[in-house]
Amino acid sequence: MELRVLEGVFDANRKIAEENRELFRKHGILAVNLMASPGAGKTSLIDRTLALLRGRVRMGVIEGDIASSVDAERVKAHGVPVVQINTGGACHLDAAMIRQALDHLPLDELELLIVENVGNLVCPAEFDLGESLKVTILSVAEGHDKPLKYPLIFTQTDALVLNKMDLLGMGDFDLGALRNTVLKMNPDVTIFELSCRTGQGLEEWAGWLERMVRGREGHS
Amino acid sequence: MELRVLEGVFDANRKIAEENRELFRKHGILAVNLMASPGAGKTSLIDRTLALLRGRVRMGVIEGDIASSVDAERVKAHGVPVVQINTGGACHLDAAMIRQALDHLPLDELELLIVENVGNLVCPAEFDLGESLKVTILSVAEGHDKPLKYPLIFTQTDALVLNKMDLLGMGDFDLGALRNTVLKMNPDVTIFELSCRTGQGLEEWAGWLERMVRGREGHS
Repeated sequence: MELRVLEGVFDANRKIAEENRELFRKHGILAVNLMASPGAGKTSLIDRTLALLRGRVRMGVIEGDIASSVDAERVKAHGVPVVQINTGGACHLDAAMIRQALDHLPLDELELLIVENVGNLVCPAEFDLGESLKVTILSVAEGHDKPLKYPLIFTQTDALVLNKMDLLGMGDFDLGALRNTVLKMNPDVTIFELSCRTGQGLEEWAGWLERMVRGREGHS
Repeated sequence: MELRVLEGVFDANRKIAEENRELFRKHGILAVNLMASPGAGKTSLIDRTLALLRGRVRMGVIEGDIASSVDAERVKAHGVPVVQINTGGACHLDAAMIRQALDHLPLDELELLIVENVGNLVCPAEFDLGESLKVTILSVAEGHDKPLKYPLIFTQTDALVLNKMDLLGMGDFDLGALRNTVLKMNPDVTIFELSCRTGQGLEEWAGWLERMVRGREGHS
């Protein structure tokens, strides 16, 4: 009986996710669902990406958090449209929350919408938001065994951003082992190695994201 | 209607948690619910604690993960009783999972049971396992703003372990701000600053844990 309830939740979510996807398509928006553990660097990556792609891509942001608006404040400083969702306890965003947030964004003006999910490697992977791309960040400080423990998110993600590369060598993070594990689970994943702190590798990431925006426009 | 289902889940969990709590009391076991983000250092802290308290406290471990048994293997090397729970997707442990695991542990021989929850700062805080103490780890690499974003776990926790103190100064972690935020939410919390990597601060943590085990025996 419990399972039936859960299926109901997932079915309902999927339906709204498809509506979101159609809305993104109609407006020519590339929507990125950005997922990671707490503290892996989601807001920092958004911060850096907004700075790098300023003038190149028209961007908007949805910030998802259990509570607080510290992330939205940080994004607002870039002068881009941003909506903060406070889930009030829920450990992930769902499609209905995104649907609501979209009412407060100038969709016609956007080419790229970055959605920062709640910090969590588990539940966000189970809820389709209608996004065009899933991007997962793993911080080098978290350890290379994470894909073994949280397989779903690493299997589904379109891109994996290894952040805090400046900390490589400070712990026992094994980059080769990480790449092997992830590529075995998800052979098509694009992996970026960067550091939001030092700036290393950021231009490659931003360039890829810009190409995804342009490629999408070319196709529609 | 959805809310009613959730309340049902929490009620059912609470009932089993009370049974677990009674079982721990009967056997004189201090049960610790160890929670943190993925990669904050839960298994490393258990690893270090087992080594430090060996011969001083009779310990057992329950390892909770979505998938894999890498953590249990690591614990087994210490020669202590360990049970691995694979939640198969669930993002937190619940009381019923613990109840099942207890059937496979020699409860009469244990004084301290450490339960490593699934790496997640959200849902584990919502499910009482029947534990005697909640301990939360925050890694310095995660940033000092985490209590603002995940308030429940930091409000409830009996002890907060700041791990990876050797990385302090490598990022912008503000120790004073962290302490202020947490103590405002949770004035009774005991805070430890340590590094599982360098060993810094570990004896204080282990000594405190041992005193909690003995104090409990004194009271019962």
